[in-house]
Amino acid sequence: MSLVVVGSVALDTVTTPAGKVEDALGGSALYFAAAASLLGPVSVVAVVGEDFPEEEIEFLKERGVDFRGLEKRPGKTFRWGGVYSEDLNQRETLFTHLNVFEDFSPSLPDAYRDAPFLFLANIHPRLQSQVLDQMRRLRFVAMDTMNFWIEGTPDELAAVLKRVQMLVINDSEARQLSGESQLLKAVRATREKGPQTVVVKKGEHGALLAHGDSLFWAPAYPVENVVDPTGAGDTFAGGMMGYLARAGEVTEATLRRAVMYGTALASFCVEDFSMRRLKTLTLEEVAERLRALQEMTRFDLEE
Amino acid sequence: MSLVVVGSVALDTVTTPAGKVEDALGGSALYFAAAASLLGPVSVVAVVGEDFPEEEIEFLKERGVDFRGLEKRPGKTFRWGGVYSEDLNQRETLFTHLNVFEDFSPSLPDAYRDAPFLFLANIHPRLQSQVLDQMRRLRFVAMDTMNFWIEGTPDELAAVLKRVQMLVINDSEARQLSGESQLLKAVRATREKGPQTVVVKKGEHGALLAHGDSLFWAPAYPVENVVDPTGAGDTFAGGMMGYLARAGEVTEATLRRAVMYGTALASFCVEDFSMRRLKTLTLEEVAERLRALQEMTRFDLEE
Repeated sequence: MSLVVVGSVALDTVTTPAGKVEDALGGSALYFAAAASLLGPVSVVAVVGEDFPEEEIEFLKERGVDFRGLEKRPGKTFRWGGVYSEDLNQRETLFTHLNVFEDFSPSLPDAYRDAPFLFLANIHPRLQSQVLDQMRRLRFVAMDTMNFWIEGTPDELAAVLKRVQMLVINDSEARQLSGESQLLKAVRATREKGPQTVVVKKGEHGALLAHGDSLFWAPAYPVENVVDPTGAGDTFAGGMMGYLARAGEVTEATLRRAVMYGTALASFCVEDFSMRRLKTLTLEEVAERLRALQEMTRFDLEE
Repeated sequence: MSLVVVGSVALDTVTTPAGKVEDALGGSALYFAAAASLLGPVSVVAVVGEDFPEEEIEFLKERGVDFRGLEKRPGKTFRWGGVYSEDLNQRETLFTHLNVFEDFSPSLPDAYRDAPFLFLANIHPRLQSQVLDQMRRLRFVAMDTMNFWIEGTPDELAAVLKRVQMLVINDSEARQLSGESQLLKAVRATREKGPQTVVVKKGEHGALLAHGDSLFWAPAYPVENVVDPTGAGDTFAGGMMGYLARAGEVTEATLRRAVMYGTALASFCVEDFSMRRLKTLTLEEVAERLRALQEMTRFDLEE
């Protein structure tokens, strides 16, 4: 089933202990699309400036990503620069130049408006609501958010949370959003705000899925050599939503499998800078990693 | 098969957001024994002072814990005091009174010396070696250690690491011991120091078992209300070793199951202060939690 993502397209300048890239492909919508497009069609809503290197997203077009919703505007593309700590667990933002993203006002091509699956990446909650208003046949909406909106626009965030089925969020953001320091309490309080399904991303510690009366504890794939963590969360969301749209139904079983697709895809994302690894990745490699993850978590209780 | 633990017996004064206890039962050997005794016989080697409240360990004697190796010496019992942060992820030591523990020099009853399973809790590595020297028919030895010995007595620690089959250690200590910040590299470097099997405890994030060519990613049980984290690591080790001694053989399958027993037992430990929850705990409750943990980590790849 068709899937739409609304988010950012950026050019990132990233420094990690493994090296540096300048003006490399980035942004939540692109990472999401790079992951989801391995599993099925995905349509992008975002904005770029006149300086955007179109040829660099050719590989996504070849994978069937629909860019009719990628608006090109006068000015420069959104740029972000950051540097990661030695152990990669912290990052410092060096600059954020919103450029054309500052006036982003998503207007969806008519062909997008009947899509049943939608992901609202981490953008202003007012824009997230604006996108929801344009959709006609939604079946399952997931969203991300961040500390900036939790602190700065709590009312607009509360309004959009009431309209989505799933929230995909970092553990620290779940704690901040709910005001609860213990994770289970944070998840419960978050679900009371609207989304009946919550996925808490814990980075190298995996993810927690709360759906119905059950909890699913997902591992992270232990990557031998992490090069660049940028985009891992959006790749995770792209793998999840890509799988759900492919499956066509949201159940406990498909959600768990979706989390594992997200986990596997995110583990490839961090193995190289920007989208380099996602560009060459095949679904066969993903399947192999899924089998490895299953083997890594298997235990029998009978003797 | 019989199992011996060498470690501390202490009286702990602990403050957490949930309250405070004074001079409550504590120490690595006691937590270990409280867990392991649910699965089979366990013999304790430790030292207490004349002020030790013998009646408080009556429940362990009733469970079959052998205290012939618990030496009583003139003076006071080891006392520790600490306070936990609001989110329970950090603790500050307020005092450490070693008392009789300062001159602890473990001498094992003859009946202990043929035990095939041994756990060396977190004590001076020279004492750990001294215990190893007294054992005659060892089949599987596991040990714990901490930053204090990693920094202070690296040569003596290196010597004992060469003589054990398994190390059970915190993630931060694994990084410190190996000098590697990425966990997989830390585990690999640690195994090169001696122990072929390594279990990294990650607290609320579960545990990682490295054995042979495989990795096992264990969840933590998501406890609704953590009251007191003290002793969770030793309880985990007690559950692991108790299960391995009960199974009588160390294989990939028994090790994974052992990690899960440790996980389940540790999750009960933290639900109340000191050993209160471990005191009333039954094997049926443990089995129920193991089934819940299995349900929480299960996912199918087929559609």
